[in-house]
Amino acid sequence: MKIDVHFEPAAPLPDLTGSTVVVIDVLRVTSVMVEALVNGAQGVYPAPSTEEAIKLASSLGREDTLLCGESRGLKIEGFDLGNSPGEFTAEAVAGKRLVMSTTNGTRAFFLVDEAVRVLAGSFMNLGAVAAEVMDSDSLVIVCAGTDGLFSLDDAVCAGALVQRIRTVAEAGVELNDAAVGAVEMARTFHLNRHFLAATSTGQRLIEIGLPEDLDACAEIDRHAVVPEMDDRVIQLCSPKAGLSEPGG
Amino acid sequence: MKIDVHFEPAAPLPDLTGSTVVVIDVLRVTSVMVEALVNGAQGVYPAPSTEEAIKLASSLGREDTLLCGESRGLKIEGFDLGNSPGEFTAEAVAGKRLVMSTTNGTRAFFLVDEAVRVLAGSFMNLGAVAAEVMDSDSLVIVCAGTDGLFSLDDAVCAGALVQRIRTVAEAGVELNDAAVGAVEMARTFHLNRHFLAATSTGQRLIEIGLPEDLDACAEIDRHAVVPEMDDRVIQLCSPKAGLSEPGG
Repeated sequence: MKIDVHFEPAAPLPDLTGSTVVVIDVLRVTSVMVEALVNGAQGVYPAPSTEEAIKLASSLGREDTLLCGESRGLKIEGFDLGNSPGEFTAEAVAGKRLVMSTTNGTRAFFLVDEAVRVLAGSFMNLGAVAAEVMDSDSLVIVCAGTDGLFSLDDAVCAGALVQRIRTVAEAGVELNDAAVGAVEMARTFHLNRHFLAATSTGQRLIEIGLPEDLDACAEIDRHAVVPEMDDRVIQLCSPKAGLSEPGG
Repeated sequence: MKIDVHFEPAAPLPDLTGSTVVVIDVLRVTSVMVEALVNGAQGVYPAPSTEEAIKLASSLGREDTLLCGESRGLKIEGFDLGNSPGEFTAEAVAGKRLVMSTTNGTRAFFLVDEAVRVLAGSFMNLGAVAAEVMDSDSLVIVCAGTDGLFSLDDAVCAGALVQRIRTVAEAGVELNDAAVGAVEMARTFHLNRHFLAATSTGQRLIEIGLPEDLDACAEIDRHAVVPEMDDRVIQLCSPKAGLSEPGG
């Protein structure tokens, strides 16, 4: 199994045809996707911009559709929900289609759609994602980053995912340099709220009054589910048995 | 003092006017520059391609000029020297102008020339570079990477440089996420030949029969000098006292 980590989506990605991709945006969109889909959302529709989100929501029909997302971290004016995991309760989202536009995370999904499979990973569903990708020959982990550049929360989550896979993989796992670096970072940082609070995105969330988002996004293996994108809609796939036990 | 590390030159760099830049290409060009200038080369002229190197050497006059560099790691046909530190002896280079073209390192110098100062860093001159940049308000460390993407040797060297600066800096040092990650990697990897041999560029050098280059490039603080680019020519600047003691 070959695992490549890519830290910066502003740099060119390799040819992804033939690969399984995991997109990681710990703070916060892949964490939010996990929470929303566990709470019964029908599907998440990523949009590349606020304008495209509004168009897409209109075309889907507004009655069962919620407009969600952020600009500069904050809920977009006129949208139904922002980008905080705590907003995506069953009451708010069960049965709804969620059109989502965020600064970094939703855009990353548009860069990778030629891959064989596109999954959403976060600390919240680390074990489930590891179990789901175990059979891949070629895995590419794409960190959503911040404005296309390196983001520590995503890089460390990528490293934690590689560690999980390596612990269980029976055959050899071949890593690119970024994957080796990511594993080293995941080994040495304490993966918790305090770590997230020290990242630049974490600091920004505290500044804008959303510190509770860090608690939710730091909860490792909170849910044993895997969001998967198919035809530009993200829904839960049935997780495989194995690595998905909470805390495992 | 603000320190930003950039891992991937294929991703956009920030506005560098007002910043001091350190370019790092451990394997091998910034290591080679240190060695060549210590051994008396008159100056290094980075070129963005083999063709440009040949043109530049002709315009400088071939008698005191050596064509140096690599393509796919190996010496370019018709060139005088490759890209191995061991080739750049005083016998070979003293008094010569060196026109240099390499896959990653020399190109990185062309991305940063609007900076206030552009220095060349490597494990070989880590302490001298740290001492030289101590007074900067804004330092940007640009890893040359591999084909524009993340390279572990450069990232860890960047982290080691940040650590050195932090040990001595009197005022607070503000790091971007990549700098925090780089420091963590530098703290946990053993900075030696074996580490370099495990990176993807290190593996490539072993494959093409140049393992001895790793020994030279891993030699921390071998020389207390700082190459600096001025008007597209790289020469030694006078190092400041302080951090530059070998092994310090």
